[in-house]
Amino acid sequence: MKKDAILICTGCGKEFPLNRIHPRCAGCNEPLEVAYGRLAPVEIPARGTMLERYGDFLPFSVPRREISLGEGNTPLLRAGALAEELGMLSLFFKNETQNPTWSFKDRGTVTGLMHAVSLGITKIGTVSTGNMAVSVAAYGARAGLETYVLVSKGIAEEKIAPIAIHGPRLLTVDGDYGELYFRSIEVGERRGIYFINSDVPFRVEGSKTIAFEICEQLAFQAPAYVVVPTSSGGNFRGIQKGFEEMHRVGAIDRLPRMIAAQAAGCAPIATAFGRGGLTVERVKEPRTIAHAIENPFPPSGNQVLRKLREHGGLAVTVTDEEILAAQGLMAGTGIFGQPEGAVPLAAVKKLRAENVLEPADSVVCIVSGAGLKYMAALRLHRFEVRGVSIERLEEALVG
Amino acid sequence: MKKDAILICTGCGKEFPLNRIHPRCAGCNEPLEVAYGRLAPVEIPARGTMLERYGDFLPFSVPRREISLGEGNTPLLRAGALAEELGMLSLFFKNETQNPTWSFKDRGTVTGLMHAVSLGITKIGTVSTGNMAVSVAAYGARAGLETYVLVSKGIAEEKIAPIAIHGPRLLTVDGDYGELYFRSIEVGERRGIYFINSDVPFRVEGSKTIAFEICEQLAFQAPAYVVVPTSSGGNFRGIQKGFEEMHRVGAIDRLPRMIAAQAAGCAPIATAFGRGGLTVERVKEPRTIAHAIENPFPPSGNQVLRKLREHGGLAVTVTDEEILAAQGLMAGTGIFGQPEGAVPLAAVKKLRAENVLEPADSVVCIVSGAGLKYMAALRLHRFEVRGVSIERLEEALVG
Repeated sequence: MKKDAILICTGCGKEFPLNRIHPRCAGCNEPLEVAYGRLAPVEIPARGTMLERYGDFLPFSVPRREISLGEGNTPLLRAGALAEELGMLSLFFKNETQNPTWSFKDRGTVTGLMHAVSLGITKIGTVSTGNMAVSVAAYGARAGLETYVLVSKGIAEEKIAPIAIHGPRLLTVDGDYGELYFRSIEVGERRGIYFINSDVPFRVEGSKTIAFEICEQLAFQAPAYVVVPTSSGGNFRGIQKGFEEMHRVGAIDRLPRMIAAQAAGCAPIATAFGRGGLTVERVKEPRTIAHAIENPFPPSGNQVLRKLREHGGLAVTVTDEEILAAQGLMAGTGIFGQPEGAVPLAAVKKLRAENVLEPADSVVCIVSGAGLKYMAALRLHRFEVRGVSIERLEEALVG
Repeated sequence: MKKDAILICTGCGKEFPLNRIHPRCAGCNEPLEVAYGRLAPVEIPARGTMLERYGDFLPFSVPRREISLGEGNTPLLRAGALAEELGMLSLFFKNETQNPTWSFKDRGTVTGLMHAVSLGITKIGTVSTGNMAVSVAAYGARAGLETYVLVSKGIAEEKIAPIAIHGPRLLTVDGDYGELYFRSIEVGERRGIYFINSDVPFRVEGSKTIAFEICEQLAFQAPAYVVVPTSSGGNFRGIQKGFEEMHRVGAIDRLPRMIAAQAAGCAPIATAFGRGGLTVERVKEPRTIAHAIENPFPPSGNQVLRKLREHGGLAVTVTDEEILAAQGLMAGTGIFGQPEGAVPLAAVKKLRAENVLEPADSVVCIVSGAGLKYMAALRLHRFEVRGVSIERLEEALVG
């Protein structure tokens, strides 16, 4: 690993060596992040994988081992007609559904994996029931590492299969799911298993490449706002950090304002933000169709709150009805996201209606994962299908 | 459109103007293709969309209209460990599951759409029940065109939803599905609806970019073999054409040998090839788990046969059991393809066992679409899941 990077606590600033596996501060228990002593203003290469192109902003050299699945380099699509409909000049979708396992998780999985490999660790794991479980299982298979995926007891069969197909050691765990996050880290540290959970520092390092790509794709004119569906807070932290690093090296001349978008049925960060709180409180009975952002006690929640305050960000909630409507609206522009992938658009609609977003504001929505991941949501949409005989096809096409 | 391209019949060589909508020869009824008067050896730009980067090999200028969803530019992954297991030096997967609607179809949909738009046509359509229906619905939505998707009566509800979410005019048609392909073209021509069906010339122009990317990704050293899951024959034709054009401009110094891989339960091309036939015959009762390549009477079948003979290609069949085994094997390298996406690997295993493929042959498998598209296939796999209480987690991770 490179010598000029360290781990630093996002809460109290305490420093730790880069080879630390535990993702939280031994003092205040807040999450750690990678801090760079020197970041040079660089020319980002046009060709290459995400890891190769952004190597100057990552603490490792690209390994020889086959580790990448071709993550990142996803499209940023301008949605002109929809922007006009919403009374905005420019609206963009960053389509993370085109990653190897069809969600943004792959970016952070590969960087987490690189950390593990750089430390000589041969076993990885994760606690997840959704996108991250699939991603870690796939990358563990790619790298040929022993891979442990811990899911809740009672997980639906349809969620197990796309994880299991990659051949990890799959365990259904009976017990409190929130506790499992912390337990996995402890046990993993003792047993030499690197748990690439949702907000570990090296997963955040992967997520920041979303911001890098947005900067490049907008010719280094930062958008006014970036809207992130927010659960554990890891992806939010990564994207925020990416823009800060681009700003630090002088590639962009201002930071976009970040918007943490949450489902009304599970909004610990937005709730704390709304009441001016500094720490998140556990949501008792989370309930939303956007299951991938249904974390009742986000481990990076406090850090997201700090960043929102430090840089003038916003937090907003949207209802399941608004999420479903936004899913349909976004599909009407060609992009089929899973419910939480439509949460940013739902937030934009709401904030635009309230005139918090003004017509001239350029806005980027992060579409976090593919609609195919959660087909049950489609049963809540109404579709019109017409039957016709082949003989009467022409009439049907005219009428 | 550019002036130096025409349409030419793949069967009899008869020429047609580029603005022709009907995809087949008015004389011999074989499919048409785009022929270029001049193809200059060019420097392919490193940055840009697929349409921008390969503009010199396409008959249109990139339109101002928002038409692209960020198709193409998919990873080519070397599978070192699996190659070793199969006794090969190099095996690659071209992962088409990272396209906007998670299959290779998007490449040809966007070029078909460009043809329609260049002709001033505002209505598009397709006949499909799978990947192509989803793709055309998404791109029609993207471009804001009226979009007709014709599916068979009796299509499963789960197949309808991911098409319908994009808001096309969706018709279930009662009648012979094979006849519907031809009927849609006729009716479409009369009614101003451009049917971007599976093997129209401008869809083939999109598919050829797969070959272009493979050439770039292998530093213009053509692989020995490229294995394509083959149904209508349109994708096979496109990839073959792409390599021929790269060869013509001197970018590669030999053509790879193409392998048309089909499911044993629906193998009209491989059957005709095996008996030395020049034309495909309709399969009476197609039956395979690889539904996306279950075309019993492929409209480009004869042209695929001609190309196989002209360039020393091969055709091969694999059983459903072999396909499922290959799906699992490929997922064990990190790539979760739909059953037909695993057909090439199944073919490679078979041909390697028969020593048709030799250890030194470099082989590229085209992974045509995402495993999430057909989750029912996963029920045929056996997975091991272990239950554990959170208190006994550590024991379980050690044991």
